[in-house]
Amino acid sequence: LLTSTELDHLRVVLVSTRNPLNIGATARAMSNFGFRHLRVVNPYEPAFQEARSAVGASSVLAGAERSNCLGEAIQDCTLVVGTTAVRHRHLHHTVRRPEEASPLLRKKLRSTNVALLFGSEKFGLSNDDLSHCHWLVRIPTRDENISMNLGQAVAVCLYELIRGETRVLGKPDRSPPASAGEVERITAMLLDALAVSGFLDLRRVADSEQRIRRLVRRLHLPERDAVIWLGIFRQILWKLRANQTPRSSAGPRQVSE
Amino acid sequence: LLTSTELDHLRVVLVSTRNPLNIGATARAMSNFGFRHLRVVNPYEPAFQEARSAVGASSVLAGAERSNCLGEAIQDCTLVVGTTAVRHRHLHHTVRRPEEASPLLRKKLRSTNVALLFGSEKFGLSNDDLSHCHWLVRIPTRDENISMNLGQAVAVCLYELIRGETRVLGKPDRSPPASAGEVERITAMLLDALAVSGFLDLRRVADSEQRIRRLVRRLHLPERDAVIWLGIFRQILWKLRANQTPRSSAGPRQVSE
Repeated sequence: LLTSTELDHLRVVLVSTRNPLNIGATARAMSNFGFRHLRVVNPYEPAFQEARSAVGASSVLAGAERSNCLGEAIQDCTLVVGTTAVRHRHLHHTVRRPEEASPLLRKKLRSTNVALLFGSEKFGLSNDDLSHCHWLVRIPTRDENISMNLGQAVAVCLYELIRGETRVLGKPDRSPPASAGEVERITAMLLDALAVSGFLDLRRVADSEQRIRRLVRRLHLPERDAVIWLGIFRQILWKLRANQTPRSSAGPRQVSE
Repeated sequence: LLTSTELDHLRVVLVSTRNPLNIGATARAMSNFGFRHLRVVNPYEPAFQEARSAVGASSVLAGAERSNCLGEAIQDCTLVVGTTAVRHRHLHHTVRRPEEASPLLRKKLRSTNVALLFGSEKFGLSNDDLSHCHWLVRIPTRDENISMNLGQAVAVCLYELIRGETRVLGKPDRSPPASAGEVERITAMLLDALAVSGFLDLRRVADSEQRIRRLVRRLHLPERDAVIWLGIFRQILWKLRANQTPRSSAGPRQVSE
């Protein structure tokens, strides 16, 4: 839903990341969702080098810019949003859920650059980092395990941005139902098979035929499958009868799915 | 927003996963969002062992159940949903976006077990795996890089489930559906009957078993009717076989509607 220009307005900023896999995973999620600008602040140097030289490293990673301080990395942005795992202790900032944050971010992305910040695996964003932020996003994790893997947190935040907002709950449901005539032919064939197989003898009830009819109706057979079900019961019935009165071989006329 | 019971109704199923980091990342995202039941089908064994013995491995991982076939892993589920990266080529399944899928999943989670399947890193879910699925979810990635990291895909799908959502879908459901285990037992019985009756011989196609499995899945069998359909096919099968090798009379053990 975001235009190419809007996608290009986002800067994903990793601050003091230590694990090369997380840098790679961030770049991959960005590439999956169409974002291009990755900035890496004060990374653990070997991690950054390892991530960039990984097999299959994306163009996002190749184009990643590194800076030694956060101020430099966000200088062209008019909105700076941090991410946090903790719920409290953010006296200075509004903390929003991702679904509240996304419309605000999308609106800004139309016209200006926006920075989305992710802190280190161990400590998150420092108070100094946070002082650059206008507000914060928190993915609603459980108290028992609030801290997400960095690559997964990035994926969730970016997904929220590209997630369809115009929801069409149109329900593209199942194929059209079989006609009453088809359902009845299948029912008749099944009833014959049940009679021949002895099934109905075992369960003598006055309204067995009606019960079977209701049973088949409850299947809500799709139209596309009516012919094959008819073929299945026709063949079974033919075989049940052929066994009783031995005849040639073959079978009834064929049907195709 | 999901209750503890609803969270417990989800089974995250990893099929043929090879990378221990992805098994660990899956467990971590589950733990972040409060889901507990991880099932691992046919994993690359060293990967599973490595993931379980990793430092800080969660209780989700410790409680992970492994099975050798998908059917076993999903037998207590009444809705089976697969994930896919590709947009086309799913002629047999409805493919939904995560935001369309979530309300449907949440609704089912209220009362029954739901399986959410993720395929291997390299190949995704196989056609055989897909034949167990009622429908599919696809995260809307870009054509240039459609394939997400497995751990990130899991995080996004689970996040969608717990994400704040107030919208209620209308349309109260019909009677509760049969479990995957029941449907699979009926499918197996039908396949036997089709083999004995000669039906399958007349229609030699490579994937006939998958076709029949999909055919039965499309019936959306109600739970209340599972036993009677099983009885019907059991009796028919017994009769087909009894005719071939004459035996006494009677029939298999009875079932009642």
